[in-house]
Amino acid sequence: MTAPTPRGTRIAHIGIAVRDLAAILPFYRDVLGLPEVPLADADGARIGAVAAGESLLELLEPAQPGSPIDKFIEKRGPGIHHVCLYVDDLEGTLARCKAAGVRLIDETPRIGAEGKAIAFLHPSATGGVLVELSAYDAP
Amino acid sequence: MTAPTPRGTRIAHIGIAVRDLAAILPFYRDVLGLPEVPLADADGARIGAVAAGESLLELLEPAQPGSPIDKFIEKRGPGIHHVCLYVDDLEGTLARCKAAGVRLIDETPRIGAEGKAIAFLHPSATGGVLVELSAYDAP
Repeated sequence: MTAPTPRGTRIAHIGIAVRDLAAILPFYRDVLGLPEVPLADADGARIGAVAAGESLLELLEPAQPGSPIDKFIEKRGPGIHHVCLYVDDLEGTLARCKAAGVRLIDETPRIGAEGKAIAFLHPSATGGVLVELSAYDAP
Repeated sequence: MTAPTPRGTRIAHIGIAVRDLAAILPFYRDVLGLPEVPLADADGARIGAVAAGESLLELLEPAQPGSPIDKFIEKRGPGIHHVCLYVDDLEGTLARCKAAGVRLIDETPRIGAEGKAIAFLHPSATGGVLVELSAYDAP
């Protein structure tokens, strides 16, 4: 097996916590004219997504009381919940984070909603941003 | 003059309000390995930026008490302050926003920190996200 060509780190998606997906999606899809991308619901959230260049904007509406997005909105109000970055070498990036003392939420990669290996970093290291790192492809 | 080829709507940058630029920039630049991009300070903020694919991550540190970033951090803590989207037709996009009843912060484009025409939308229409729309090129 040969290593894939590196694609570089880029924004996979921005996750936006919303109270009412049906009320907000039309702004991104119809007013801004961004193409809708079908995504399965996940983590107790209904998800509506649109493509903005090489990245997605994912609108996350709580589908269950007490789900992570529901708790986020209760505490902070609607708005950006996390930013997901694609990286070529997820395990290597996590190792560099650990070596630099970056606090991790996931010490090792786990399989995320889209079937790809992902890991969340703690906002204390990133300027208050919940950063998700994702491999490009499903393992 | 011919119209430029449309480039589509994409994420120009994510603006992240940080208390201490020097403490956070090394995570993005050195740990994640994102190339640093020199940007002039603006709007009472010191700015450190890195490229993530076609987008920038801009770290905004208050340089003056009472500046917009300073007030944001006082109220909400550090984290994502705004998302800037490049659009091909800024005036047309603003017209569509108005027609759809989207609340605008800037009713007409103004010249932003980088010399490009920009306009901010009110978070009430966007799912709690402060969205900046920007033309691709300086007028």
